[in-house]
Amino acid sequence: MGYPFVGIIMGSDSDLPVMQEAAEILGCLGVAYECTVVSAHRTPDRMYEFAKKAEERGIQVIIAGAGGAAHLPGMVASLTNLPVIGVPVKSKALNGVDSLYSIVQMPPGIPVATVAINGAKNAGILAAEIIALQDKKVKAKLKQYREDLKEMVEEKAVKLEALGYKDYLTK
Amino acid sequence: MGYPFVGIIMGSDSDLPVMQEAAEILGCLGVAYECTVVSAHRTPDRMYEFAKKAEERGIQVIIAGAGGAAHLPGMVASLTNLPVIGVPVKSKALNGVDSLYSIVQMPPGIPVATVAINGAKNAGILAAEIIALQDKKVKAKLKQYREDLKEMVEEKAVKLEALGYKDYLTK
Amino acid sequence: MGYPFVGIIMGSDSDLPVMQEAAEILGCLGVAYECTVVSAHRTPDRMYEFAKKAEERGIQVIIAGAGGAAHLPGMVASLTNLPVIGVPVKSKALNGVDSLYSIVQMPPGIPVATVAINGAKNAGILAAEIIALQDKKVKAKLKQYREDLKEMVEEKAVKLEALGYKDYLTK
Amino acid sequence: MGYPFVGIIMGSDSDLPVMQEAAEILGCLGVAYECTVVSAHRTPDRMYEFAKKAEERGIQVIIAGAGGAAHLPGMVASLTNLPVIGVPVKSKALNGVDSLYSIVQMPPGIPVATVAINGAKNAGILAAEIIALQDKKVKAKLKQYREDLKEMVEEKAVKLEALGYKDYLTK
Amino acid sequence: MGYPFVGIIMGSDSDLPVMQEAAEILGCLGVAYECTVVSAHRTPDRMYEFAKKAEERGIQVIIAGAGGAAHLPGMVASLTNLPVIGVPVKSKALNGVDSLYSIVQMPPGIPVATVAINGAKNAGILAAEIIALQDKKVKAKLKQYREDLKEMVEEKAVKLEALGYKDYLTK
Amino acid sequence: MGYPFVGIIMGSDSDLPVMQEAAEILGCLGVAYECTVVSAHRTPDRMYEFAKKAEERGIQVIIAGAGGAAHLPGMVASLTNLPVIGVPVKSKALNGVDSLYSIVQMPPGIPVATVAINGAKNAGILAAEIIALQDKKVKAKLKQYREDLKEMVEEKAVKLEALGYKDYLTK
Amino acid sequence: MGYPFVGIIMGSDSDLPVMQEAAEILGCLGVAYECTVVSAHRTPDRMYEFAKKAEERGIQVIIAGAGGAAHLPGMVASLTNLPVIGVPVKSKALNGVDSLYSIVQMPPGIPVATVAINGAKNAGILAAEIIALQDKKVKAKLKQYREDLKEMVEEKAVKLEALGYKDYLTK
Amino acid sequence: MGYPFVGIIMGSDSDLPVMQEAAEILGCLGVAYECTVVSAHRTPDRMYEFAKKAEERGIQVIIAGAGGAAHLPGMVASLTNLPVIGVPVKSKALNGVDSLYSIVQMPPGIPVATVAINGAKNAGILAAEIIALQDKKVKAKLKQYREDLKEMVEEKAVKLEALGYKDYLTK
Repeated sequence: MGYPFVGIIMGSDSDLPVMQEAAEILGCLGVAYECTVVSAHRTPDRMYEFAKKAEERGIQVIIAGAGGAAHLPGMVASLTNLPVIGVPVKSKALNGVDSLYSIVQMPPGIPVATVAINGAKNAGILAAEIIALQDKKVKAKLKQYREDLKEMVEEKAVKLEALGYKDYLTK
Repeated sequence: MGYPFVGIIMGSDSDLPVMQEAAEILGCLGVAYECTVVSAHRTPDRMYEFAKKAEERGIQVIIAGAGGAAHLPGMVASLTNLPVIGVPVKSKALNGVDSLYSIVQMPPGIPVATVAINGAKNAGILAAEIIALQDKKVKAKLKQYREDLKEMVEEKAVKLEALGYKDYLTK
Repeated sequence: MGYPFVGIIMGSDSDLPVMQEAAEILGCLGVAYECTVVSAHRTPDRMYEFAKKAEERGIQVIIAGAGGAAHLPGMVASLTNLPVIGVPVKSKALNGVDSLYSIVQMPPGIPVATVAINGAKNAGILAAEIIALQDKKVKAKLKQYREDLKEMVEEKAVKLEALGYKDYLTK
Repeated sequence: MGYPFVGIIMGSDSDLPVMQEAAEILGCLGVAYECTVVSAHRTPDRMYEFAKKAEERGIQVIIAGAGGAAHLPGMVASLTNLPVIGVPVKSKALNGVDSLYSIVQMPPGIPVATVAINGAKNAGILAAEIIALQDKKVKAKLKQYREDLKEMVEEKAVKLEALGYKDYLTK
Repeated sequence: MGYPFVGIIMGSDSDLPVMQEAAEILGCLGVAYECTVVSAHRTPDRMYEFAKKAEERGIQVIIAGAGGAAHLPGMVASLTNLPVIGVPVKSKALNGVDSLYSIVQMPPGIPVATVAINGAKNAGILAAEIIALQDKKVKAKLKQYREDLKEMVEEKAVKLEALGYKDYLTK
Repeated sequence: MGYPFVGIIMGSDSDLPVMQEAAEILGCLGVAYECTVVSAHRTPDRMYEFAKKAEERGIQVIIAGAGGAAHLPGMVASLTNLPVIGVPVKSKALNGVDSLYSIVQMPPGIPVATVAINGAKNAGILAAEIIALQDKKVKAKLKQYREDLKEMVEEKAVKLEALGYKDYLTK
Repeated sequence: MGYPFVGIIMGSDSDLPVMQEAAEILGCLGVAYECTVVSAHRTPDRMYEFAKKAEERGIQVIIAGAGGAAHLPGMVASLTNLPVIGVPVKSKALNGVDSLYSIVQMPPGIPVATVAINGAKNAGILAAEIIALQDKKVKAKLKQYREDLKEMVEEKAVKLEALGYKDYLTK
Repeated sequence: MGYPFVGIIMGSDSDLPVMQEAAEILGCLGVAYECTVVSAHRTPDRMYEFAKKAEERGIQVIIAGAGGAAHLPGMVASLTNLPVIGVPVKSKALNGVDSLYSIVQMPPGIPVATVAINGAKNAGILAAEIIALQDKKVKAKLKQYREDLKEMVEEKAVKLEALGYKDYLTK
């Protein structure tokens, strides 16, 4: 494989509305990615193959999102030495606390880099920060992204100070 | 394989002080079992092989114990159609709430029969209840076991009523 | 009597929208079942009779759903040696954490095979896995069901890879 | 039956170190009581008989302590119209949160008067408050008990103010 | 004064939609009651007066509902020897877990008989059970109420068994 | 700077619907304030400057609201000796428990005066109570505010007692 | 009277090992204080008197510590317009989560400035920060205290960097 | 700076017994590191300088451990574009749930790669996985480390199967 890229996987297509944010920000930051469905529980063989071939296919970082008994990120991490970023998807009954605990509480030896519940955008940014260690273009885009974030906040601050809270809210 | 039996597995030998209770009660109830270590995260290939060959080896029920991001029961369940009983092992920081959520909150399609935190004895009894559907000897032993439990409680009740709580406690 | 079957009970008919999934999947998997309301708290005598006669009526596995201080699965389990599967029904204030703890944290001696909050479908599948130990037709249907699950995921994966996440979401 | 009294029951004699406080305070407040072991799960028939005969035996209030999936108070409440006070006993893994939820989250129709985790002393006082509605001697003892509590606090306050915190702690 | 009655109080009129269920069931069970707003935090003097005069006014049981840092039941209990029943009202952010802990975790000496989150109906029934110890009419109504509950469940069971779950749900 | 005032800051303008209540009540209580957006994570330099210059600009109390990993109040507190009041803003997945823990569990040396989840109004009142130690006008307004609260509750109580709960609710 | 001071109160002398840290740090920072026991539940009249007379006695800030259903801080706050700082004392079963929720989740109108579980030292510092708004000596001591904290950390950093982690730990 | 390395920081030297595991495993995996104390709250200026100069000093990955209101990882992440790994250190009252939520629930834009509570070893491995993307020697060591983990488990499995659980435990 030629170009290094990020593999985004999720346990179910119902996770896509959350996980698309990872794809979107990676696109903005100029990082190549692929995006597919891999279920630890319903397609365990597919998961094995995905994880074991990820490195040779050129994947540098894997982003895995799952909800409930969210085994996908940890199982993928057990099958590769690539950095794996886990996104706990908010679940219906437990609001993602189950997803978070299932992903973050990995045993010694097999880490998963866990982000916030539904924090797919941050998973993408984290992947880009890792890629950026070897890619100055991505590094530059990350710097610009931070700068934009800052400016956006500052603009809102100026506006809020100018308008006062009542007018700001009724805008 | 000839005789049906129960497979007891655990993610680490540090789970054995908890998981031995499953083996012990199965022994008492006359159910054959094997007991070994299979780690979802550190030996994923071993886990795959164990789960995929379990049925042909004569295993009827699998008891899997794990703590923290406890993926072993759910992953084994995804690789076999045998009933899988999960034992959430008490963890250091979160007291087994992480283990419980990781085991019980399985997605539709792949059940794990979850028992209490550190409930390995009940996992053994539940396995025996399943085996007993086809094995009258085990059924008879289960009935006796329940009878014994009842008598033990009744004896304590008689003693407590006779002694009063103070003497009972200082026995 | 004659044919073995699964008994599905629930504490209130308000649990039926959740519990029907157990009936539905059992139907798909070719497992006979009955479905009724038995309340541990409002009809304790009815519960006693149900549990004590279950085995002689030919019931092989009991699925019991309840919410809040969900005593039904555990009390039924205390009155029979049949395997009892508990479904914690999501509750209004505590989202089913109360139901889950009340069902899963059974004391040594009396297990309840607990599934996820609102996990009635998995309760049905688990019951089928138990029945399948003696029934090759059910075993075959379970294998087919797993195969279908896998294919469904794989089809979605192919579609997502082909369309990209944006088109997939706007379908 | 002649004299009204309080029935103290617990799921296991391992709950006695907690539950004895109910007996002790009832003794201090001049309320008759009996104290025994009744397990909802291991002796369901005994529990039925206890609950159904409680009223005719002269019991006015039942105090029931249990831990984990603590069904005893709620099941007894479902079998009698007497006021039932539930004591959630601190459990090993979940520190009594499971016991508390199992006892307090009763469905509409069947109340359990729940006190704090390990709050057996308060269960005794609450029972005495109920008895005192018909018994002026108990009412007088309750008033005195409150007075004593108040004085004990006031004495400590005087001592702490006089000594200062350092000397008070090194006493 | 003259007739014994139950005092229902709540911290805010926003608790009335929950607390009305206590009044309603007391009405059904033939127990006299009054119903008003007393805030521990916004009207502490009113609360003092209410609690200190409750007994002489003929109140036999106090039902107090509150949400969040729900101090009303415990503070009232500290100012009277009457039995106080606390109703944790479901709160916006913490779903009533804060209310529950604030009400149930009372220190030794001052009990509050706590019911489920939003469990005002059960608070009313519990109060009636206490009143019924001295009032045979209320006792008879409680027995009838239980009987009605049982019949209601049994009718639903019959209907569900007759219709099957699909028709029952689409009724 | 001439007049002492309160600085209200928040991590994002999405917190404004919550935080405006602090501004509003400060206005009612006659306390000067400013209100702006300062993000610990997206504008750390702005936060530094704000916190380090707060005292010399005449700010007496800082109210900081934030949600999720809510670092703003604690970080501002680490950069100034002024009293800092933290408002945990309710978050999507964890309902503000994350915000609360992130704000209240400060290490020894750097306190944050934490109020309830979404408790911005109370943050404003607390700031006014602090200002009132030096400002008799604010003290007088606070006393009036309490008086108004009390009267509002008492009026509702009178109305509820007069109408009864049914008419009160259907008003 | 004359000199402004801080009132430190606690629900029980068993809270003193925690609460003494507030007294100690106030002493270090040159702030006068008194320290006594006031129980909301066991001495409600004493609490009323304390809270209502606090202001005229010269108290400027009240620090109140309590555990479990920790009503003391909130009830004192409802009886005075002085700033009240609440210290949730770690409880046996729930580790202080009950104390924290009971103290921090106050309703609109009556704030309590809550610090961390067992955070009595920070309560003292927060009180000093409030006093320092009018007292330059306290302000100076606070600045020095912060400086000392910083130097202590920096010295440890230098030592750790010089020794390496192994020698640092075996010191 | 010449050689790339990992910066390990912690909020207090009391975190060192946990955080040393990160240093130790990095040493084993042949990754250069430095290890020091940086407190977000007590040395905010030091933290700013550390974070802002990290990249130019040659740091590639930052590992930050903190407990309670654990702001260090998130604040460092807000001041650099390097990947930041957060280690939630187990806290006294809340067992590290506060640390976990404060670290993992970062807002969109600023990720922290969070590992398990007290998971410093995994933080080290994760950092090595990131470094290994550019360093084949580290990659090889990681592969060997995984191989060793696997063998260790397999040896224990063989031993347990040979000895049986009783002899294994009494070894």
